[in-house]
Amino acid sequence: RVNGDRLWDSLMDMAKIGPGIAGGNNRQTLTDSDAEGRSLFKTWCDEAGLTMGIDRMGTMFATRPGTDPDALPVYVGSHLDTQPTGGKYDGVLGVLSALEVVRTMNDLGIKTKHPIVVTNWTNEEGARFAPAMLASGVFAGVHSLDFAYNRRDPEGNLFGDELKRIGWVGDEEVGARKMHAYFEYHIEQGPILEAEDKQIGVVTHCQGLWWLEFTLTGKEAHTGSTPMNMRVNAGLAMSRILEMVQGVAMGEQPGAVGGVGQVFFSPNSRNVLPGKVVFTVDIRSPDKAKLDRMRAKIEAQAPDICNALGVGCSIEAIGHFAPVTFDEKLVTSVRSAAERLGYSHMNLISGAGHDACWAAKVAPATMVMCPCVGGLSHNEAEEISKEWATAGADVLFHAVVETAEI
Amino acid sequence: RVNGDRLWDSLMDMAKIGPGIAGGNNRQTLTDSDAEGRSLFKTWCDEAGLTMGIDRMGTMFATRPGTDPDALPVYVGSHLDTQPTGGKYDGVLGVLSALEVVRTMNDLGIKTKHPIVVTNWTNEEGARFAPAMLASGVFAGVHSLDFAYNRRDPEGNLFGDELKRIGWVGDEEVGARKMHAYFEYHIEQGPILEAEDKQIGVVTHCQGLWWLEFTLTGKEAHTGSTPMNMRVNAGLAMSRILEMVQGVAMGEQPGAVGGVGQVFFSPNSRNVLPGKVVFTVDIRSPDKAKLDRMRAKIEAQAPDICNALGVGCSIEAIGHFAPVTFDEKLVTSVRSAAERLGYSHMNLISGAGHDACWAAKVAPATMVMCPCVGGLSHNEAEEISKEWATAGADVLFHAVVETAEI
Ligand SMILES: NC(=O)NCCC(=O)O
Ligand SMILES: NC(=O)NCCC(=O)O
Repeated sequence: RVNGDRLWDSLMDMAKIGPGIAGGNNRQTLTDSDAEGRSLFKTWCDEAGLTMGIDRMGTMFATRPGTDPDALPVYVGSHLDTQPTGGKYDGVLGVLSALEVVRTMNDLGIKTKHPIVVTNWTNEEGARFAPAMLASGVFAGVHSLDFAYNRRDPEGNLFGDELKRIGWVGDEEVGARKMHAYFEYHIEQGPILEAEDKQIGVVTHCQGLWWLEFTLTGKEAHTGSTPMNMRVNAGLAMSRILEMVQGVAMGEQPGAVGGVGQVFFSPNSRNVLPGKVVFTVDIRSPDKAKLDRMRAKIEAQAPDICNALGVGCSIEAIGHFAPVTFDEKLVTSVRSAAERLGYSHMNLISGAGHDACWAAKVAPATMVMCPCVGGLSHNEAEEISKEWATAGADVLFHAVVETAEI
Repeated sequence: RVNGDRLWDSLMDMAKIGPGIAGGNNRQTLTDSDAEGRSLFKTWCDEAGLTMGIDRMGTMFATRPGTDPDALPVYVGSHLDTQPTGGKYDGVLGVLSALEVVRTMNDLGIKTKHPIVVTNWTNEEGARFAPAMLASGVFAGVHSLDFAYNRRDPEGNLFGDELKRIGWVGDEEVGARKMHAYFEYHIEQGPILEAEDKQIGVVTHCQGLWWLEFTLTGKEAHTGSTPMNMRVNAGLAMSRILEMVQGVAMGEQPGAVGGVGQVFFSPNSRNVLPGKVVFTVDIRSPDKAKLDRMRAKIEAQAPDICNALGVGCSIEAIGHFAPVTFDEKLVTSVRSAAERLGYSHMNLISGAGHDACWAAKVAPATMVMCPCVGGLSHNEAEEISKEWATAGADVLFHAVVETAEI
């Protein structure tokens, strides 16, 4: 069994870096806080006797050697970056539990055939630089390095420049590493485990996603002196598209979601009808046909909504992953570990995207999940218990050791 | 007649300060560009032999003395601040035409019984600090100085601090000056004069306004892993309120407008349902009963829309002026001047708010308007012709001289 107190203390220490405004964290990728978090993590890895490698995306790989020089490593990780108003556990739990796995192996003197690599992927959240899971996407060959380096944050800073600025560009070619297996432990970020009173989610699938970025072009005009019939109202078109997306998602229930988290009005002045409205629609489903059908419906209806108002409409797909089925053998290993340890468990489909989804493209992969209070995540009030955290880390430890072979 | 070329040259010189990104201006109130614009204006006033007074709101009053020491001054002015993506004429035309009026009086050696005071009101636009027409509102006793000093821009800067920072806090008590009359010349910012092919708008009324600032409280949550039926979607509630406002305004046609220019999502991240959405509804009508009825309808329907989604809704009226009827004698003086000069003209109700609306509370006041291309304003593409500008300045000159008495 892992040391739950040690894991919890590490979580609380990491949460001190990049504090939020309401008890959570704002440690967005490639900020000074991210750099500070990486340094603390590296210190802990050094203390655990791990060897650190960094790739050109800034992803951190901390290796505990195996006994067979020819055996590929088992990777275990997640991400240390957070949303602007994020929780203390989203991602961090997975990285620090991976560290706890090797700390426990050190305590118990366990040697494995396959090396273990504790991993911290860069920019999982996609909050500062879209798309999400950027570094694991480059690792899996989904994006080019050049594409990633040229992503811009809302202030216009380039990913590549910011990675350099915080001093975490490594020299490893991205994706050169080969994996025996990839494990990721994460909070559910949804309500199911808590509602079903289960300690462990055995993650069999991850739902797919489209991020559709809309740019609506209206006519910047005075809100007072522009008659209703002369308005080219991009804000009204946006409203109608939001309502339409809601309808499309509701029409595909169960097993589909759709919503909008980000909206920019321009010039965003109280007495100016917006000349431009940019927003991103986020749609997801575990069913590829449903996911693609939702996209098609939205892309068919939005131009009509805009045309009726004279508003220009352009749509760009800026993020995508197809639904993922995780590796059956690894899934079974997680389930058996939960059984063996006496933890209640159930199968789960991940509602959020994870680096495991891209890792699954290049290696057998799976995930372990623990409940979070009220299903709340991407919220500073995100909460889990030490007992939940420990149970999942125990399961992770057993599944990893089994896969890495004693 | 005024010197139209000189007026136009001054307009073009002022437009070099705080250039926009598309041919217009970004010279928002109390920015460094505003300070620069004020300095240039002061230089011109000095050259015209005017004496500058500044009040504690930073409003600039440049006086040309009259012949009767007991006669109250005739004030003529508008504003030099612009929207973030504003035009070159909105406000500026009125201030520089007032200057052109005294320059022409100097050229012709005209002496008047009443002094003339060329006026540049601070923060007319209300883009950086709501509400609009802030300094004239304090002047008219509608707002306290303390209220004005404590307005905040979106970055959280205080009006009072910014006024001090740019070095334009005067020592005059705000509103201490008494006016014989107030004239303001402005572009229409609407489509009527151009459509009717008239050179001069004789402004008889100004429509009233409410700015209703909505703060919707949803539940910040993951866009992927939060099932549709667990969402507390403040963005969707905002969309429905925008649609409802559109319906309320359409239901009061003709003679009413309603729309939204400013929306803030929080945290505004693509994969986070917003915990908070703040936006401002702008409704206007020349008919007070209609204006207040629109507000009542919106305030009655919005909470129901929000309740149906579980979203919290608070509404604050952050800007208001009642419809204004301008002074009959001054209106007649403007109309007669247009007649005399042979300019085509028509009566007009101002769609936008103006400092003249607050001045009308403390003195006889009126306005002159000139057409603008396509009725477009609050847009960098705002355009007028030199001929239009000159015609209105001629009318202003004649009406002012008549009112100030030779
Ligand atoms: N786990 C997580 O929140 N990942 C961010 C990408 C997504 O929006 O699913
Ligand atoms: N003229 C003008 O645009 N004033 C700003 C206040 C308003 O929105 O009417």
